[in-house]
Amino acid sequence: SVPDDQRAPPPVVHYKLDSLTTSSDPVGNRETVHILTPLARFYQGYWDNILNLDYPHDLISLGFIIPKTREGNAATAALQAEIAKTQSGPEKKRFASITILRQDFDPPLQSQDESERHKLENQKARRAAMAQARNSLLFTTLGPSSAWILWLDSDIVETPPTLIQDLARHDKPIIVPNCYQRYYNKDKGAMDVRPYDYNSWVDSGTAQNLASKMGKDDILLEGYSEMATYRTLMAKLADLNGDPSSIMSLDGVGGTALLVKAEVHRDGAMFPPFPFYHLIETEGFARMAKRLNYQSYGLPNYFVYHYNE
Amino acid sequence: SVPDDQRAPPPVVHYKLDSLTTSSDPVGNRETVHILTPLARFYQGYWDNILNLDYPHDLISLGFIIPKTREGNAATAALQAEIAKTQSGPEKKRFASITILRQDFDPPLQSQDESERHKLENQKARRAAMAQARNSLLFTTLGPSSAWILWLDSDIVETPPTLIQDLARHDKPIIVPNCYQRYYNKDKGAMDVRPYDYNSWVDSGTAQNLASKMGKDDILLEGYSEMATYRTLMAKLADLNGDPSSIMSLDGVGGTALLVKAEVHRDGAMFPPFPFYHLIETEGFARMAKRLNYQSYGLPNYFVYHYNE
Ligand SMILES: Nc1nc2c(ncn2[C@@H]2O[C@H](COP(=O)(O)OP(=O)(O)O)[C@@H](O)[C@H]2O)c(=O)[nH]1
Ligand SMILES: Nc1nc2c(ncn2[C@@H]2O[C@H](COP(=O)(O)OP(=O)(O)O)[C@@H](O)[C@H]2O)c(=O)[nH]1
Ligand SMILES: [Mn+2]
Ligand SMILES: [Mn+2]
Repeated sequence: SVPDDQRAPPPVVHYKLDSLTTSSDPVGNRETVHILTPLARFYQGYWDNILNLDYPHDLISLGFIIPKTREGNAATAALQAEIAKTQSGPEKKRFASITILRQDFDPPLQSQDESERHKLENQKARRAAMAQARNSLLFTTLGPSSAWILWLDSDIVETPPTLIQDLARHDKPIIVPNCYQRYYNKDKGAMDVRPYDYNSWVDSGTAQNLASKMGKDDILLEGYSEMATYRTLMAKLADLNGDPSSIMSLDGVGGTALLVKAEVHRDGAMFPPFPFYHLIETEGFARMAKRLNYQSYGLPNYFVYHYNE
Repeated sequence: SVPDDQRAPPPVVHYKLDSLTTSSDPVGNRETVHILTPLARFYQGYWDNILNLDYPHDLISLGFIIPKTREGNAATAALQAEIAKTQSGPEKKRFASITILRQDFDPPLQSQDESERHKLENQKARRAAMAQARNSLLFTTLGPSSAWILWLDSDIVETPPTLIQDLARHDKPIIVPNCYQRYYNKDKGAMDVRPYDYNSWVDSGTAQNLASKMGKDDILLEGYSEMATYRTLMAKLADLNGDPSSIMSLDGVGGTALLVKAEVHRDGAMFPPFPFYHLIETEGFARMAKRLNYQSYGLPNYFVYHYNE
């Protein structure tokens, strides 16, 4: 064997967390971005869209967590085929690194159909499992030089190519665009857009009142008429021709697309898989971040689009 | 520049979290251990002790987080000098990798004197800062192949060399030894031992009752007569000649030495820097892990020793 003093010593790395910037000019400052995606189904539109992001790809690392179901296996295969093409293709399009995690727990529902997913009684278990998946992905991929985390669902099939820069420019700890969906409007006889994600909101007295009367393990959910919260929903405030840089404070955020400064997660903000102030997953995350003195913000007139099943 | 197809493609890594074992035979299964240490002062006894751990060092990664204070700078220098010696010394003693993080926030107290540290009114801010330091270290160093996390304070100067194996052998998600301190007993005219860490406990009706009457941001703290909790303290249950493998369930844990399966953290359990069920830091961690269905355990007759100032 090689004598001790001729072997390379193991790596010692020294990081100053305070010299890691997360600024309004992330490209200029060469700030690294993790795009983290819990992925149950693969959508070609998602991949095509991230390929078109014009944030320097050598500053982007991708991370996926995929369930161990049959659907998850198919999604993994489809994802790997696209990765192989991209990472051996033009250098400018290649990402800095890619991590694929296979989940070590079973998802609570086998069906990924929208109607089944959105049933109120299925939501708590489903969103707890999603929260756990996000946490596994986060705890496993965040490194000492990570500056920003872009949470991006696998069914977000259209964003502006400047998504990362446009969100980062506001220099907020947590910022969320408005998640809409394209659909065919029969009345108009034309394509149209409509709100998709209702998890970005400003709290209401009614919701707080509901929460105060709930059992301590019950959760408030948005978008169910059985449980009217009268929160101010960012989805409803969109002005399709309004200023895309107009910004508002939020108390809850959705995670379909969500930019977070790494320091927020590093301080401990994660996605509670248990009721936290009667909130769970991304909405619970915003609440937890608030406990750590980080405010969430939303861009009501800046849009990303969810796949239409 | 080199043509695209002649450059090495960027790394793509695929991890199956469920094939990562954390077993009662971690050495046999080549399971990786992170030793994570928040470090405000460097103690030679700490370094000498970890050097003597007989868990294979090539399976151990070390991680430190150090405040940016003057004391922190001195600790960093002392640590780096020891690292340089160890990592260029005999191969068997070298650790797999070492990460040093410098904190990006200021500690709330400048003084590290024990009497100042332990004042009740200083504890909440202090332990919140400690929790945040632990979270930064955890979120930044945990990787996809991490199996176990050994939290070890920088002033733990004596453990059995088989510490990791002895704790892991019980195959529990969270397990804590009893943290004692050696001192000169004047009455006996000889060296003796006494309890040091009171954060490992079984909950009591009294404590729950106290908690239920507290303001929602107040915290319960152990070891202060102003706030008698009547919890069952593991520190008081030690039998110095008892079976070191005797084990008990716990509701709160201390973090001076604490072995955790990585999956517990990956699911989202961190060190709450805010009151969580009126608990904070390592005690809050045990409560949060419980919410994620992980039970904590303690070994009342298995000892590690805290430095005596
Ligand atoms: N890893 C993992 N990802 C999931 C799971 N369920 C859904 N996802 C992904 O998580 C994101 C949000 O889920 P989705 O079903 O689209 O939620 P919805 O649009 O709010 O109904 C999408 O990227 C899904 O592909 C799961 O059990 N495990
Ligand atoms: N990074 C960091 N470490 C700290 C800080 N304060 C204490 N520590 C370390 O955290 C551990 C526990 O703190 P210590 O003061 O020993 O707590 P005590 O023994 O419970 O009074 C020790 O390893 C300290 O060196 C801090 O502000 N930042
Ligand atoms: Mn979706
Ligand atoms: Mn100590």
